[in-house]
Amino acid sequence: MKRTALSQLARRTPESAISWLMKLTLERPDLISLAAGFTDNDSLPVNETRELLDDILRSPRTGRPALQYGATNGDAALREMTAAHLVRGDVAGQTPSSDTVQQALPPADLSARMLITSGSQQLLYITTEALCDEGDIVLVEDPTYFVYLGITQGRGLRTRGVRLLDDGIDLEHLEQVLDELKQSGELPRVKMLYLVTYFQNPTGRTTSFAKKAAALAMLQKYERAAGHPIYLLEDAAYRELRFAGEDIPSALATAHAGRVIYAGTYSKPFATGARVGFGVLPQDVFTAASRIKGNHDFGTANLLQQLLSRAMSSGAYEKYLPVLRQRYAAKAATMVRAIREHFPTSVKWAEPGGGLYVWAELPTRVKSGVKSSLFGNALKSNVLYVPGELCYCDDAARRKPNREMRISFGGARATDIPEGIKRLATVMRRCGVR
Amino acid sequence: MKRTALSQLARRTPESAISWLMKLTLERPDLISLAAGFTDNDSLPVNETRELLDDILRSPRTGRPALQYGATNGDAALREMTAAHLVRGDVAGQTPSSDTVQQALPPADLSARMLITSGSQQLLYITTEALCDEGDIVLVEDPTYFVYLGITQGRGLRTRGVRLLDDGIDLEHLEQVLDELKQSGELPRVKMLYLVTYFQNPTGRTTSFAKKAAALAMLQKYERAAGHPIYLLEDAAYRELRFAGEDIPSALATAHAGRVIYAGTYSKPFATGARVGFGVLPQDVFTAASRIKGNHDFGTANLLQQLLSRAMSSGAYEKYLPVLRQRYAAKAATMVRAIREHFPTSVKWAEPGGGLYVWAELPTRVKSGVKSSLFGNALKSNVLYVPGELCYCDDAARRKPNREMRISFGGARATDIPEGIKRLATVMRRCGVR
Repeated sequence: MKRTALSQLARRTPESAISWLMKLTLERPDLISLAAGFTDNDSLPVNETRELLDDILRSPRTGRPALQYGATNGDAALREMTAAHLVRGDVAGQTPSSDTVQQALPPADLSARMLITSGSQQLLYITTEALCDEGDIVLVEDPTYFVYLGITQGRGLRTRGVRLLDDGIDLEHLEQVLDELKQSGELPRVKMLYLVTYFQNPTGRTTSFAKKAAALAMLQKYERAAGHPIYLLEDAAYRELRFAGEDIPSALATAHAGRVIYAGTYSKPFATGARVGFGVLPQDVFTAASRIKGNHDFGTANLLQQLLSRAMSSGAYEKYLPVLRQRYAAKAATMVRAIREHFPTSVKWAEPGGGLYVWAELPTRVKSGVKSSLFGNALKSNVLYVPGELCYCDDAARRKPNREMRISFGGARATDIPEGIKRLATVMRRCGVR
Repeated sequence: MKRTALSQLARRTPESAISWLMKLTLERPDLISLAAGFTDNDSLPVNETRELLDDILRSPRTGRPALQYGATNGDAALREMTAAHLVRGDVAGQTPSSDTVQQALPPADLSARMLITSGSQQLLYITTEALCDEGDIVLVEDPTYFVYLGITQGRGLRTRGVRLLDDGIDLEHLEQVLDELKQSGELPRVKMLYLVTYFQNPTGRTTSFAKKAAALAMLQKYERAAGHPIYLLEDAAYRELRFAGEDIPSALATAHAGRVIYAGTYSKPFATGARVGFGVLPQDVFTAASRIKGNHDFGTANLLQQLLSRAMSSGAYEKYLPVLRQRYAAKAATMVRAIREHFPTSVKWAEPGGGLYVWAELPTRVKSGVKSSLFGNALKSNVLYVPGELCYCDDAARRKPNREMRISFGGARATDIPEGIKRLATVMRRCGVR
């Protein structure tokens, strides 16, 4: 008995880069990890959560429902409050320019097609299951969120990368990719464009509202040749972690909201250990996703949903958010100061306005990949980053760039950040970066 | 744009029978539902949970880790305690007869290949993803847990039913099915046998240890022709809900443990709103399942895992279990009394020793299905049951039986159970059952 009974999906699913990076971390207790996408440990809302749960569980009237099965789609009150919060953000995010909200959707419309999930990660997984067959094509940012690439790889999907500029994808490149796919007759396999629109993982960049609207309009132009809708999957996981600038309306506020799947989460802005995410989906995708979610787990743990619901209704969430933002602003500032002080001048990077990441680009001839001497030396010097190459999809149309790095100020202790950056800078210089 | 972008999986995934039955319930406030697989509401451990969470969140030392990401496979301490609990149950469940434990696995072996999931449902989903490609075959009990059939249907799997006797599947029928599949050359598509081994959903029957061992031995005989391992997926969701008789060792205690995937849960014996399940898998299936779980959600919410971990380590779980068992014993006794008093004598049923269900079989000519006059009349009389036909897989080798019903004493109020049974009996008589 030599052959395996494992499915194609199992055999295709790679070990995630996260697991691999985490193992490296655990093996080296003195390591400063600027790789982990963990949230800040010291600011976790321990007291807030304790009080909220105590309130819920003090009485059987609220305690019992929290410990019982709930509806597969999620708690009705949480969906309503989340929809209202989303619409408030979209309206507040509008500017008097032409880049303004194109339509104000009623919260009741959003909550009716909202699915509560175990983090937004599960929403990404289920959405991809609901839309993509093996061999289908997903367009992604170049670079993109590397865990999403684990999903596409496992499910046997093909990916095409669309160049990422400072304000979101390069629309000309998107058009070029779509044209190529049209000419090769593969447009019917294109199901969606996946964008991480706020403080993107890994680059920290935010997509402008105008660009979201224009990307949706462009997708629509190709739908006739595709023979079906082409969706925009907007991953807004980092939206709430903004500490500079104004909020930007979501793609749900564009005139093409009918093609938008919006993924949001309470994990990052509240507690990653509570893992409540959500999605707003077009009606037929929602129906399918909801059925699939039922097969996955009948619905996200009600206790966690009640916790977030209470955090929203009591105002605890709104009170906590500015505290968290201030915390990340301070950690980001610490990292930025250290980078200014230590990094060689030929390294390109940008100051983050939110999220957890700084994206750094080395000079052309220096490699940053997992097999590079830079990465090896960094490990030896007890500092870890995410090699940029991990964030690029498989796309035969270009070689994977291999001279960037994602460095995070989220999980590392504030006091460790300067030392981590200093170590990284030393390693860079040792590898010839000036 | 008429065509849909939905995947095959999405188009195949049916609306679950649960959703449909829940909708019926919500539309009729005076309905007594003997259909829902909900757990007992009054005995939910509200105070226990409040105290456990308060303990965890009282100090940042334990509170912060609970609100932070954990390992994808699950909390190490929870896995160890769960493995120890499992082995204790397997050893305690042995009898001095030949049906005894064939091997005692060390807990450390089990915990090393244990995956914590969002209820055991997610373990069933991920295991099926890890083993089955479209067109593969899963052998199931006839009848079986109907939500599992939603998974197989969605994933485009084929199913074959194996007759269920009082002490588990009919081994002769299993052999006959395997022989047929061997002769038709389809054995390579057979990946596993799915059994709900304790107080089965829907029949309430428990599989003997001897039968598990014999079924595994028989599967192994066909592996050479299959060309790969054939696994037993043992769903032990109701194991802890035993209120009569002795525990029975799991299939992990057989000599063929290397082919066993064991799915357990804390949802039903503790709180369905906390949704922590677990699985023990053979090493290569474990590795695959763990990667897939990473793509689903990076791991089950740490807060819930810490809650269960604390419930185990503090002894709260062990203290709560007998209370819960007594509660179900009382509700089952109430239902049994009412059935004895009201049901026509031609209805066959058996007294449950655990779990949540009684399975009732009507005389040959009476139908119980969703389109039957019995079901329609029951609804009109404000009582709901699960039609037995929903619990049978698609299998061209036989017609689906259509004269059984699953009635649950789990979710209904104890005071409503006699009235519900009385209504059901009245409807039966109206439909000609004597």
